[in-house]
Amino acid sequence: MSRPALQPPRGTRDFYPEDYRRRQWLFAHFREVAERFAFEGVDAPIVEHAELFIRKAGEEIVEQLYHFTMHDRHLALRGELTPSLARMVIARAGSLRFPLRWYAIGQNWRYERMTRGRRREHYQWNMEIVGEPDVTAEAELIAATCALFGDVGLGAGDVRILVNSRALLEESLRGGVLARRPEAFEPLCVVIDKLTKIGADAVVDLLCDDAGPVSLKPAEARDVVDMLGVAGIDEAARSLPPDAPSVAGLRRFFELLDAYGLADRVDFDASVVRGLAYYTGIVFECFDSRGELRSICGGGRYDGLIEKLGGRPTPAVGFGMGDAVIHELLSDKQLLPELPPGIDDVVYAFGEAERPAAVAVANRLRSEGRRVDLVLGTPRLKRVMADANRRSVARIWLLGPDEVGRGMAKVRDLESGEEHEEAIERS
Amino acid sequence: MSRPALQPPRGTRDFYPEDYRRRQWLFAHFREVAERFAFEGVDAPIVEHAELFIRKAGEEIVEQLYHFTMHDRHLALRGELTPSLARMVIARAGSLRFPLRWYAIGQNWRYERMTRGRRREHYQWNMEIVGEPDVTAEAELIAATCALFGDVGLGAGDVRILVNSRALLEESLRGGVLARRPEAFEPLCVVIDKLTKIGADAVVDLLCDDAGPVSLKPAEARDVVDMLGVAGIDEAARSLPPDAPSVAGLRRFFELLDAYGLADRVDFDASVVRGLAYYTGIVFECFDSRGELRSICGGGRYDGLIEKLGGRPTPAVGFGMGDAVIHELLSDKQLLPELPPGIDDVVYAFGEAERPAAVAVANRLRSEGRRVDLVLGTPRLKRVMADANRRSVARIWLLGPDEVGRGMAKVRDLESGEEHEEAIERS
Repeated sequence: MSRPALQPPRGTRDFYPEDYRRRQWLFAHFREVAERFAFEGVDAPIVEHAELFIRKAGEEIVEQLYHFTMHDRHLALRGELTPSLARMVIARAGSLRFPLRWYAIGQNWRYERMTRGRRREHYQWNMEIVGEPDVTAEAELIAATCALFGDVGLGAGDVRILVNSRALLEESLRGGVLARRPEAFEPLCVVIDKLTKIGADAVVDLLCDDAGPVSLKPAEARDVVDMLGVAGIDEAARSLPPDAPSVAGLRRFFELLDAYGLADRVDFDASVVRGLAYYTGIVFECFDSRGELRSICGGGRYDGLIEKLGGRPTPAVGFGMGDAVIHELLSDKQLLPELPPGIDDVVYAFGEAERPAAVAVANRLRSEGRRVDLVLGTPRLKRVMADANRRSVARIWLLGPDEVGRGMAKVRDLESGEEHEEAIERS
Repeated sequence: MSRPALQPPRGTRDFYPEDYRRRQWLFAHFREVAERFAFEGVDAPIVEHAELFIRKAGEEIVEQLYHFTMHDRHLALRGELTPSLARMVIARAGSLRFPLRWYAIGQNWRYERMTRGRRREHYQWNMEIVGEPDVTAEAELIAATCALFGDVGLGAGDVRILVNSRALLEESLRGGVLARRPEAFEPLCVVIDKLTKIGADAVVDLLCDDAGPVSLKPAEARDVVDMLGVAGIDEAARSLPPDAPSVAGLRRFFELLDAYGLADRVDFDASVVRGLAYYTGIVFECFDSRGELRSICGGGRYDGLIEKLGGRPTPAVGFGMGDAVIHELLSDKQLLPELPPGIDDVVYAFGEAERPAAVAVANRLRSEGRRVDLVLGTPRLKRVMADANRRSVARIWLLGPDEVGRGMAKVRDLESGEEHEEAIERS
């Protein structure tokens, strides 16, 4: 047998016990919020037919697809969960009751040359509402993200939530560039999503690239970039008819947030468009207030995806929150809890003669639901005590020949240091 | 965009809400038992360097590896968790405290032509004790499997646990075929594991195959097969010196099981060898008592694996229990629970004017930890009531113009049918 590398593949993570406890702590919060909002858990395979993910709008997530061919099947590790969930909706559209609320916690993969310290996998919490066209759905999702932030200790001052509407942008461009080429809208959004990363001039260049999927004239491209800088909904609305649906939707969305008590948590920002092709309506992103990290979560309305994948037209809205950025933020703010192993009792036999008695004690404690480390072999007591203290154990049961001869065990409370004797067999 | 298949790749599963609840129910039992036995959760990437899994003993699990090359890296979806956990142990051997108890719940993959209705993925609960040479470790693992069976409702009559020792077989053959070629032991075990599936004659043929990795003489092969049929430890011991370590280990193991109260749950069976190359000592498998299903779980001691992967010699023992077979058994025995969605309250606004009041009620109930479905849009009350009853909801909050005008909501208990009014804002 060859000697394999000791590290997992580049860009992936091992979860040792302390990492795993933190991961499960975060996942438990995801789950708890999802359930409070009446979302049901679902999951799909991490390997899908590659075609499910392939789109032509130039998205990073598609370009970085982990894909391969086995026995003539083109397969991929999912880069995102939404297409799988959409596929599941289509497969059972006849028997599902809409609107449905689904959540998932799954691992996503992206294959890229490792240059920027980004990883190749992360876990993502997805929350999706399928079958509801009204912005009440978006408002529920924003409320759920805020509930999660609150539950993990992040206050209103720690996180900024920015909202825009792709429909607003689409309506604004409908009389212009999109009249000629409506199919340019998706790749256009993918390009302008790069604004904060590459700057306005580079975005204009990409929008005007004749070899690219958008291919605007320079003046058109400048107009698009200018639209991303408008200061508020009123300003954005000025170039649209007074009854523009996108403006009405945004206003109603903010009214709803007011009912949730969240209006002051959320700001309109015309530059937020998201980097996925399929969004059609309201989009949103959450950032740390200091702007030091990548986005904590993002989502939006994707009313066209299910139809494009072969289903009936079905409105849908969702968001994804990765485990990585929120972990960094919680770490920066010292909000990650210390999570000890969670052992209640250690049971220690002084020798092999006392082992059956130790097993009996461990058996009994476990049947009572206690978490019990039955010490294997016969390490020295001093070492066992040191380990127990390090792992925040509550009690240690000492089974020496004397005690066992009398049917008893010595029990030491490791916090108080007090000792007493207890019968091995409970009467 | 092309229209992808509606089904996930052949041999993989979608988990719709009812499937997901059952999966989480089973995982919660895995976790709960692991914690009662003081095991700590860990995880490793589902994609590893392929070399970690490749061995030359002819195992099915290696032949069916899901592997592919991307950017000159030979990668694989893990077919089993143990090599990853061994890799993790080696990478931090200096800072880990042994013996360690680790558990994991992860998905494993195998790529095979789909011919026998077997799936290409399953989830597996792994429990590993690393660093303990004594059979006290094996006994803890057997106790943990029995605890799991008990927790999900499977009694002593439902499951058979069969135990053997590869060390016993190895000691028996040491003077014979293994004296000449000790390296033949691993592939020999892999072949004889097929005994119940292909029969004694076919096993003899494989053992004698000159082109195969074992290549015994026919009389030697017959001797090996005969050893698999011995009736008990005493008979197996007859051909060995009285102080043979493997026999002493087995006897001590059964004495320990007696202390656990489990001696009558476990039988010696010389034909159990397991199909993985790396086992070295006690091996065990659990089956449904009626013998209708594949094995529910299996495991054993693998004292050589960590050293072979490049670590220090480290004794280890573990088992894996898949989610599929136990699910079938629980289903056959009607032990799978009905798990409703778990919604406490439905909140329904009669119209848009009442929506802010409905949001306020949902907000308050959620802040109290209740699981609340805030009805989106304005479906008919009749339909909302039907859905609520179908999903075992406890209460429905009705916000009509009359009630909201008085600052009240009507609350209906869906079990008793009783109604009362409650203030929207709690005083």
